[in-house]
Amino acid sequence: MNAPPIPPDSPAPIGEAELAAAAPAGIQTPPPDLAEQVRRALAEDLGSGDLTAALIDAATLGRATVISRETAVLCGRPYVDRCFAMLDAAVTLDWKVNEGEIVRPDQILFEASGPARALLTGERTALNFLQLLSATATAARTYAALVRGTGCVVLDTRKTLPGLRTAQKYAVRVGGARNHRIGLYDAILIKENHIVAAGGIGAAVARARAVDAGAPVEVEVESLEELREAISAGADSALLDDFTLDRMREAVAINRAAARPLRLEASGGVRPESIRAIAETGVDYVSVGAITKNVRAVDLSMRFHWSDAT
Amino acid sequence: MNAPPIPPDSPAPIGEAELAAAAPAGIQTPPPDLAEQVRRALAEDLGSGDLTAALIDAATLGRATVISRETAVLCGRPYVDRCFAMLDAAVTLDWKVNEGEIVRPDQILFEASGPARALLTGERTALNFLQLLSATATAARTYAALVRGTGCVVLDTRKTLPGLRTAQKYAVRVGGARNHRIGLYDAILIKENHIVAAGGIGAAVARARAVDAGAPVEVEVESLEELREAISAGADSALLDDFTLDRMREAVAINRAAARPLRLEASGGVRPESIRAIAETGVDYVSVGAITKNVRAVDLSMRFHWSDAT
Repeated sequence: MNAPPIPPDSPAPIGEAELAAAAPAGIQTPPPDLAEQVRRALAEDLGSGDLTAALIDAATLGRATVISRETAVLCGRPYVDRCFAMLDAAVTLDWKVNEGEIVRPDQILFEASGPARALLTGERTALNFLQLLSATATAARTYAALVRGTGCVVLDTRKTLPGLRTAQKYAVRVGGARNHRIGLYDAILIKENHIVAAGGIGAAVARARAVDAGAPVEVEVESLEELREAISAGADSALLDDFTLDRMREAVAINRAAARPLRLEASGGVRPESIRAIAETGVDYVSVGAITKNVRAVDLSMRFHWSDAT
Repeated sequence: MNAPPIPPDSPAPIGEAELAAAAPAGIQTPPPDLAEQVRRALAEDLGSGDLTAALIDAATLGRATVISRETAVLCGRPYVDRCFAMLDAAVTLDWKVNEGEIVRPDQILFEASGPARALLTGERTALNFLQLLSATATAARTYAALVRGTGCVVLDTRKTLPGLRTAQKYAVRVGGARNHRIGLYDAILIKENHIVAAGGIGAAVARARAVDAGAPVEVEVESLEELREAISAGADSALLDDFTLDRMREAVAINRAAARPLRLEASGGVRPESIRAIAETGVDYVSVGAITKNVRAVDLSMRFHWSDAT
């Protein structure tokens, strides 16, 4: 029978040095809805209030240390900062690791100090963001590392966790992969149905340009003949849907010989074991739904030090 | 080195018959914020509008079939219903599977018919809910099946995806496990820090009752001595933090001999391989963070049938 999808621990498909080498250049900008995301996550946990925190005197101060229990790409610092800032401006965080850096088992990520109630109340929400976004960044970095040196770029997809689109897209960038379109509004992806409705690839692309002259237009193609039509139609890119490696190589050759080549994206069931061979066919992009639709939360732990408290 | 957390496919830890036998009794009620969750997920995908859908004439009708590509517990029907209803009231869904039922590879989950634009626009958001919530329900059902017959109940935790707390808690119930507290507001969990601050377990429980006389009070204990104190203090339950199996059995014996026994919960690093032995110690509950913090999205596919369209 088939496997029920219970998420197991995974064997390491790649080493720490390879992960480090695949880091993105520069600092990634967190999304504009970050504060709203954090507010919402705090609200669903706090509801009418933290009953347990009320056991601690409001004047009590404390200190907390967060460690990683495994190797991962750290992502989510701005979410954690915002979380504690929203609870109590008197909380200060001392980060020991930069966003996007690789952390190892038992490594200290940050120390937090301030009102004990805020530290206790914010712990779970902060760690939930950090364990999720670090998981997404680590998955992105792993796939990026697997294709390093081929010139092929790893893209994410719209297979994201509902409500967490921008946060996961940010984690993908921190990981070192690149964002495909963010949503239905910033690019056009023409599929079979649109082609049929328009009466051909040329007509569909022309219609797309008429809808939005500025938006990138990609055509999903299922054959080399359709690829030739997409090239002729002047599409920006073509999505090679479930092509074999041989067909991908043919597609790359056809495209390179064209007067106006487009960008080629491979897609469909990409796995850690198969991604490098796909990248080596010469396609420009490979998109991986697993980066954002699956989560293997990074194991984190927060320890409280109350001896320091007054 | 340690494993970077890239989520792999998982081997089946349990068979389909066992999954079916662990179904919950009765129908689970979806959370009150369902509509808001769907609205938000649609908004992040649509933004200023679906550029590609504009390629299809607004009057075009279509039909779509969604199938599962693997064995899983179906969860998320009300989210899918709401998603299409919000986009266009003219879309009708014909479900072939009940919420909580087991689906098999290539099984049809539902057929949707109506305005083609709405079907195309809603596809990804609907499937993102369905693949996530079915994953959570399947994980919950798997753990529930693994302890079946022991009398022990599987609980979830607050290790959830930010913003998706109530949706995942619902999926846990559909799966056949039970919800621990929903957030910080509906139960009190006394940990070491609270005990130190209050000056002992008895004082901490008394303080908790004073904060909220109606809320369940659980005490995290790290020794059998602390368990005895929690029993004497009249706590409702005790969380046995990282106890060995032998210590759990001793805890069960101590508790059963008490005049006013409480409920015992085992917690910490529970895995599919270890959960049955834990349940057989006689503890009342075992809580599993992996059910909600990890996701192995169920593989779903939507196929469009345009020959039926006018």
